[in-house]
Amino acid sequence: MVHVIDIEDPADPRLDDFRDLNSSDRRPDLPAGKGLVIAEGVLVVQRMLDSRFAPGGLLGVDRRLGELADDLRDVDVPFYRTSAEVMAEVVGFHLNRGVLAAAHRPPALDLDDVLEKATTVAVLEGVNDHENLGSMFRNAAGLGVDAVLFGKGCADPLYRRAVRVSMGHVLRVPFAHVERWPYDLDRLRARDFQLISLTPNPEAVPLAEAMTGEKVALLLGAEGPGLTEHAMRATDVRARIPMAPGTDSLNVATAAAMAFYERVRLPR
Amino acid sequence: MVHVIDIEDPADPRLDDFRDLNSSDRRPDLPAGKGLVIAEGVLVVQRMLDSRFAPGGLLGVDRRLGELADDLRDVDVPFYRTSAEVMAEVVGFHLNRGVLAAAHRPPALDLDDVLEKATTVAVLEGVNDHENLGSMFRNAAGLGVDAVLFGKGCADPLYRRAVRVSMGHVLRVPFAHVERWPYDLDRLRARDFQLISLTPNPEAVPLAEAMTGEKVALLLGAEGPGLTEHAMRATDVRARIPMAPGTDSLNVATAAAMAFYERVRLPR
Repeated sequence: MVHVIDIEDPADPRLDDFRDLNSSDRRPDLPAGKGLVIAEGVLVVQRMLDSRFAPGGLLGVDRRLGELADDLRDVDVPFYRTSAEVMAEVVGFHLNRGVLAAAHRPPALDLDDVLEKATTVAVLEGVNDHENLGSMFRNAAGLGVDAVLFGKGCADPLYRRAVRVSMGHVLRVPFAHVERWPYDLDRLRARDFQLISLTPNPEAVPLAEAMTGEKVALLLGAEGPGLTEHAMRATDVRARIPMAPGTDSLNVATAAAMAFYERVRLPR
Repeated sequence: MVHVIDIEDPADPRLDDFRDLNSSDRRPDLPAGKGLVIAEGVLVVQRMLDSRFAPGGLLGVDRRLGELADDLRDVDVPFYRTSAEVMAEVVGFHLNRGVLAAAHRPPALDLDDVLEKATTVAVLEGVNDHENLGSMFRNAAGLGVDAVLFGKGCADPLYRRAVRVSMGHVLRVPFAHVERWPYDLDRLRARDFQLISLTPNPEAVPLAEAMTGEKVALLLGAEGPGLTEHAMRATDVRARIPMAPGTDSLNVATAAAMAFYERVRLPR
């Protein structure tokens, strides 16, 4: 069971992991970034507790402690119990979810480990919007995507906003970095993945025709620029979602959701 | 061509349609609501000019007037030219898009007129989030959905935030209200639409199997409560998007996008 520690002083140094949240969850290589991973709210805290991100402590109001009692039974860390007012003063803004958990970043997962049992993966290039990343992980979890891989130029999926928008699924859907981009995509090809570039180009093949592999890696670029030519050349096929003429490209998380859906639309 | 009128005084009454935007775009039946429809930014203003929402005037900086010159050639309304500072003072907050157009609401479209040539429509119940509504219209436009119909409990699609998130497609994709909800769904059945309820219920049929009609109406409820039983009973079939076990339901705009995609995934 957690050790409940009542705290009344917002300056208490034991709360330092929750202080000034608007900067402390930045990547460790950025100014003021501690690289902490923050879970907000009961549902996301539960998902963190059920993940490889082991929190070093929790901060919350008594009511949330009660709601998490079952989840915290075998968790051996402090729960700093305080008021909503003290919480707001510590984190630097008003939180209406009443509970936070903070974890240090575990080592990154190895690409080959992540691919071992995967049959559907998303591979992102230049997706630098935390909200899109969060939505992408939420959709990946919902539609049974096994992993998300990061190529060049993507934002940090462990940033607080991405964790929140993903509803905690960033903590559960495995992700790894493709180090030598895009050359290391060969490691997917060596495992028999069909590499599919998603593009709005009307001359590309409709996704439903292009997607023929037993194992599939779906490459997606940011809305606007899309995938680089460099990345697309490293794939087997360029595919498009059929769009109405004269409309904009789709939001990248929405396009990803449709591609994930194409994999699961009929029971296999 | 628009009549360019230079304005320096933020209190000038000719700018009243742009004043205090945070309340003036509310529905006319709400406090301070004038029911105006506001387009923000060059792209959305262009879409408004190309829609049934005829602006009564525009407010913007000189640079945006230049960018819109071609679009405004045959438009006979005033363009109030001013500085970014005066604009901010008039609308009540800082806008970084530099141009606004304001239209009075035209009469609502008639359900039968909207259905006349339609083959794919979305029908919403209880979707009360402006951002979701905006995304829904954007996806509807992108994937060739002919119309959006509103049942009970939906938010106003012409609210400024919905217009913005839709990238102006709220102004272009026709929408109408289903007055006697859900009884008037019979008017779709009379036109040979297959009525499909989307539900996360794992016992429902996969959407890809359920969708058999030449004409299709996709019913969607808000994330969380979903469609009412009352509405689902008025449809022909209950269908689901196959989801991974133990995950949340999808965001309603994302679920809609997948259903729209199912209609267009292969060229017909």
